[in-house]
Amino acid sequence: MSKLALDQLLQALAATAAERDRAGGTALRERGLIRESGLLALSVPVELGGAGASWSEVLQVVRRLSAVDSALGHVFAFHHLMLATLRLFGPRAQWEPQLRQTVAERLFWGNALNPRDPRTVLVEEGGRLRLRGSKSFCSGASDADRLIVSALSAAGKLIVAAIPAGRAGVKVLDDWDSFGQRQTDSGTVLFDDVALDEAEILRQPGPLGSVFASLRPCLAQLILGNVYLGLAEGAFTEAQERTRARPPSEAIDPFVLRRAGELWAELQTARLATDEAGRALDRAWAAGDALTGERRGQVAVAIAVAKVVTTRVALTTGQGLFDLLGPRATTGQARLDRYWRNARVHTLHDPVDHKLRDLGSHALWGEWPTPSFYS
Amino acid sequence: MSKLALDQLLQALAATAAERDRAGGTALRERGLIRESGLLALSVPVELGGAGASWSEVLQVVRRLSAVDSALGHVFAFHHLMLATLRLFGPRAQWEPQLRQTVAERLFWGNALNPRDPRTVLVEEGGRLRLRGSKSFCSGASDADRLIVSALSAAGKLIVAAIPAGRAGVKVLDDWDSFGQRQTDSGTVLFDDVALDEAEILRQPGPLGSVFASLRPCLAQLILGNVYLGLAEGAFTEAQERTRARPPSEAIDPFVLRRAGELWAELQTARLATDEAGRALDRAWAAGDALTGERRGQVAVAIAVAKVVTTRVALTTGQGLFDLLGPRATTGQARLDRYWRNARVHTLHDPVDHKLRDLGSHALWGEWPTPSFYS
Amino acid sequence: MSKLALDQLLQALAATAAERDRAGGTALRERGLIRESGLLALSVPVELGGAGASWSEVLQVVRRLSAVDSALGHVFAFHHLMLATLRLFGPRAQWEPQLRQTVAERLFWGNALNPRDPRTVLVEEGGRLRLRGSKSFCSGASDADRLIVSALSAAGKLIVAAIPAGRAGVKVLDDWDSFGQRQTDSGTVLFDDVALDEAEILRQPGPLGSVFASLRPCLAQLILGNVYLGLAEGAFTEAQERTRARPPSEAIDPFVLRRAGELWAELQTARLATDEAGRALDRAWAAGDALTGERRGQVAVAIAVAKVVTTRVALTTGQGLFDLLGPRATTGQARLDRYWRNARVHTLHDPVDHKLRDLGSHALWGEWPTPSFYS
Amino acid sequence: MSKLALDQLLQALAATAAERDRAGGTALRERGLIRESGLLALSVPVELGGAGASWSEVLQVVRRLSAVDSALGHVFAFHHLMLATLRLFGPRAQWEPQLRQTVAERLFWGNALNPRDPRTVLVEEGGRLRLRGSKSFCSGASDADRLIVSALSAAGKLIVAAIPAGRAGVKVLDDWDSFGQRQTDSGTVLFDDVALDEAEILRQPGPLGSVFASLRPCLAQLILGNVYLGLAEGAFTEAQERTRARPPSEAIDPFVLRRAGELWAELQTARLATDEAGRALDRAWAAGDALTGERRGQVAVAIAVAKVVTTRVALTTGQGLFDLLGPRATTGQARLDRYWRNARVHTLHDPVDHKLRDLGSHALWGEWPTPSFYS
Repeated sequence: MSKLALDQLLQALAATAAERDRAGGTALRERGLIRESGLLALSVPVELGGAGASWSEVLQVVRRLSAVDSALGHVFAFHHLMLATLRLFGPRAQWEPQLRQTVAERLFWGNALNPRDPRTVLVEEGGRLRLRGSKSFCSGASDADRLIVSALSAAGKLIVAAIPAGRAGVKVLDDWDSFGQRQTDSGTVLFDDVALDEAEILRQPGPLGSVFASLRPCLAQLILGNVYLGLAEGAFTEAQERTRARPPSEAIDPFVLRRAGELWAELQTARLATDEAGRALDRAWAAGDALTGERRGQVAVAIAVAKVVTTRVALTTGQGLFDLLGPRATTGQARLDRYWRNARVHTLHDPVDHKLRDLGSHALWGEWPTPSFYS
Repeated sequence: MSKLALDQLLQALAATAAERDRAGGTALRERGLIRESGLLALSVPVELGGAGASWSEVLQVVRRLSAVDSALGHVFAFHHLMLATLRLFGPRAQWEPQLRQTVAERLFWGNALNPRDPRTVLVEEGGRLRLRGSKSFCSGASDADRLIVSALSAAGKLIVAAIPAGRAGVKVLDDWDSFGQRQTDSGTVLFDDVALDEAEILRQPGPLGSVFASLRPCLAQLILGNVYLGLAEGAFTEAQERTRARPPSEAIDPFVLRRAGELWAELQTARLATDEAGRALDRAWAAGDALTGERRGQVAVAIAVAKVVTTRVALTTGQGLFDLLGPRATTGQARLDRYWRNARVHTLHDPVDHKLRDLGSHALWGEWPTPSFYS
Repeated sequence: MSKLALDQLLQALAATAAERDRAGGTALRERGLIRESGLLALSVPVELGGAGASWSEVLQVVRRLSAVDSALGHVFAFHHLMLATLRLFGPRAQWEPQLRQTVAERLFWGNALNPRDPRTVLVEEGGRLRLRGSKSFCSGASDADRLIVSALSAAGKLIVAAIPAGRAGVKVLDDWDSFGQRQTDSGTVLFDDVALDEAEILRQPGPLGSVFASLRPCLAQLILGNVYLGLAEGAFTEAQERTRARPPSEAIDPFVLRRAGELWAELQTARLATDEAGRALDRAWAAGDALTGERRGQVAVAIAVAKVVTTRVALTTGQGLFDLLGPRATTGQARLDRYWRNARVHTLHDPVDHKLRDLGSHALWGEWPTPSFYS
Repeated sequence: MSKLALDQLLQALAATAAERDRAGGTALRERGLIRESGLLALSVPVELGGAGASWSEVLQVVRRLSAVDSALGHVFAFHHLMLATLRLFGPRAQWEPQLRQTVAERLFWGNALNPRDPRTVLVEEGGRLRLRGSKSFCSGASDADRLIVSALSAAGKLIVAAIPAGRAGVKVLDDWDSFGQRQTDSGTVLFDDVALDEAEILRQPGPLGSVFASLRPCLAQLILGNVYLGLAEGAFTEAQERTRARPPSEAIDPFVLRRAGELWAELQTARLATDEAGRALDRAWAAGDALTGERRGQVAVAIAVAKVVTTRVALTTGQGLFDLLGPRATTGQARLDRYWRNARVHTLHDPVDHKLRDLGSHALWGEWPTPSFYS
């Protein structure tokens, strides 16, 4: 949990990131390193044994991890998003023991909550609850110890629950095969008549069940923004380091400097927008149940701005770093195209044009984004 | 100097801004209102009778003024740049009485320092100093009480001095005629054998004569950035207010909302970059003679980023506001094109491509911009 | 109608364009020069006494006129659009005499057809038809000899008719006051109980009444594209001529050359797209009533592409020419901002985002734009 | 050489393109298909047994091949560039038999001409000529029957010659490993004391030795433009076909349509610019030794415009197709990222900013690009 632990983790991830981008699949060894680093307890309050980091601090770690390995940066971030889901959707009596146990046993949480995929249902038979169906895009579900799952009840209501990943009937498929974010394990989870206890359902206040609970999508969106920003920072660092490693005899083209300045100015402003959104989230989180819709709206707007600019900078830098380095940087061995590939895949999570429309409604009419799992 | 004074001033400037954009020339009445507001003492330290505002605070006022009247925003800002020039280029014994007098007599300072125009020379004849020649782009020189002037000595050295604007031989031409920033009076000043006292020359440390003194171009560039940002804010506010004033029956085109979101996100990030640069300048200013070259470099880089993004947002918003409002907003009476016209003229001050090249040198190689009157 | 006549006209318009941009109002003298040039007969078939130019040829003239004076370029183009309206919406027996008379008497046609403005109605009282109400955006109606007017019938049907501009009850207001396209006279026309003869209504096939008739909006849109392109060409020519007129000692900044290349490449491709659309229109026009919906669709798509790229290039060049020329080009006397102002006002005619959506429907799904007065 | 042959070839290449992008290395089977298609004789004059296609026609084939397989499109195009090099740099007596033999034996030509790599030298020892050293970026050298090689003479003069690829001492390394254009075999060729006959050197007029000879870089640049354009067309076709293959129930987001329109309009204008440049090249080629510097300049400028816009559209479409298709299109199996990867690698051939600067010199000052191997 210390700075040293993070630096060691970063170094270890960086050393093998290109090779693991090639390999794909579950990064078992690296997930082990994350467990050992203690960073899975980063967002857990001090009184429950955690490091008590603010979301800004957690997101800085997400960003640094993503600069060297955006797949594991994402998985790490989603672990903390799952912990936040417990805290936002359920009562303290429910999440406190879960968080304590997470610290004590170094539990890794994975995602099986995907509100856009309606195929998993919750059925009641003879007084017993069962999960049946499947979920796509379940990042970090492989090798997870716990899952946050969503399902539709018979009445069509969205149910969110926390279960052990190893429960009978849960099957995590190894079917994630994208050209980017290759080790996020964002594949399918099957629920083959999985038993569910009523006490595992997060009912108070439930999904987006209060203003405070509706910070969940805010955090999720800002995680994306920080992963994107990390990608841009990682790409620019490659350009920097490889430029400086070249023989000094190579003349610098003024147009290359101009282009570098253009990319870097965009990166700087994206950093500022993302940090600003992080501070806004910290303040809103601290307000707890006193959070008003208007303040939640301000946070959502700040985060939407960060999302828009980090989306752009991740793609632009992933592409533009080659303008700075020239053809020799395209060697297959270095796999520098992974910055663009990771950015391209991840920025498709939800359409940035919808964010722009929401921002426009706010900017012209003063409206706040309607809370949903994506805004 | 109070908030009320500023609000009243803003209201008064806004009421006539469109009409004065048409008229051009010197805004005598409005310059009078600025004098009366007490805001000419805003940057003067409290112990000398001023308001003791930080540069960040001064620049916030510049920004708000520029949102309603970027010509007077610029003139106001340059008054304070002239005061800063005294403090940066001369010893305390020289500037302290000048600043006291500025407060006491509500003196308005104008600019006759233009290092790119070599036509004004300082000659010594019979032990007496004389200024001869002319200077272009002398913003705010009309109706000024004091001038900061620059001239080349016989040895080709740049001399900067502070003189009363009314001194015999000083002639401020009314020849500024641009399609934007029409009331900045950025015309020519003639020096017809103007007497100069050695004590009026700022010699210790002299122009850019120390690391601290080299903050002058930093402030100058950040003033530009704040004027540009003010223009963008003013333009967006027009779009907002006019949209809301329309009959609610008018359907909102989702593409217009998207475009508004795009413009507004850019505006938000430009604000963040400009505020960040302001804080960096405040810290560097507070360091005084202890300021290192590296910290000065950091300030210059932060300001260059702000300059780049505000340049873009001022032009984009000045043009884009019509995408939001449609053809009826082009009525000649409203003169809403002045946002773009003002931005277009002012953003030509010095080439933004050179800023990008400097940023690229820093970003790729870690170099700091070489201090000059433009970087 | 000769090349000489055009060159003389261009020279005469160019000589006073900046001054007339300042003055606004109706360009009576210049409209007179257009009449004298014979160019009002340019699109009229040879057998009716005209020059028999193809639409491509007419649009080349529109483009050249617009490069020096986009207001009169527009008015000239709309005259020919009115002649095309006669030919497309009415039977030969109706338009043939009108065109002959247009040539013989050098009639100038103006526009009072604005389908978006529903305020003018056609009423029948005692077997007599009357026009009542008003129309906005009636380009070229001042000093016109003939008008094409539109009105809604009692049944809500759009009626288009050709009438003498001097008919009792027609009142052309001098209320056009926009910051751009200042001499297009695009003001309001009032119809105070204006008598209308049934024979003046264009009924066969009527407005957009056949595939061939639906070329009318194609021509209208391509006129806009050519005016925009002319604006860009005019702006770039200013940059070229003023650059070459400078003392050769002035060093050329490589960044300025790069920017010039960027603007010019965009201009070249806009020319190609506009010429291509012109050829497509010529072919469709030649097909006459044999024109199929699919071929009409191809024309509409080619024109939409031209509209999109000329919209962009007119704005970009109007703004970017100052990047090439620097601050001295902003002198009020030269009024070089008029290229941007004219482009900004005119490109708001109908939203380019809607064109992009139509193009996307075609590109992804193979759909053709639904004919309307704007697509 | 027939349309059927091309269609069959396209189909065969498309069927395995994704898999071969994964595999990399030399596409022996597909190079065989190209040989069998007869298309290696496409640019050879009819009187020498070829198809006598104009360069425009050859480039259309390059474009279509590149839409499905830009690596083989490039290799195919470079074969014809090598044939053009013979014709441009040597006398008829030299190239006529080479071209006849190329047709008769279906010879495939590869590239070992890289003026930027000075490591290969031509030495004379005991009256015998020898090539020694190495060359990088030798596209298509693997599996080639003939090579065009370049070397520096003792006097530092660039020598270009045609030799059999199988000559003793020629070693083509299999060391091309880039993340894009993976089957262009653009690796290193070693010359280990390779014998060279004086008659194999292209001396009349020699490299860029006449105005006509200086069309070689024009053709080379326009080949790049057509490969880029092919990539954009291929990427857009994927978006089209996959969109139409989806269940019709999926609602179309208007923002996606807008984005599709934006990409498609850019694609259309890139096509027009590339076709225009092709026609200009055809005319210049037909002029032969009568070609003037000015007309060569016009061709070079038209091609530079095409290069600039195709560079942009290839990258933009390679990235933007996912905006149209969403996350599911990122599946590793489809390897749709190869459009961007191929475009990114190939567009680094030579800096587009230099083209823009050359275009700016022409646009502002009327200067023609100075002929070199890249302009």
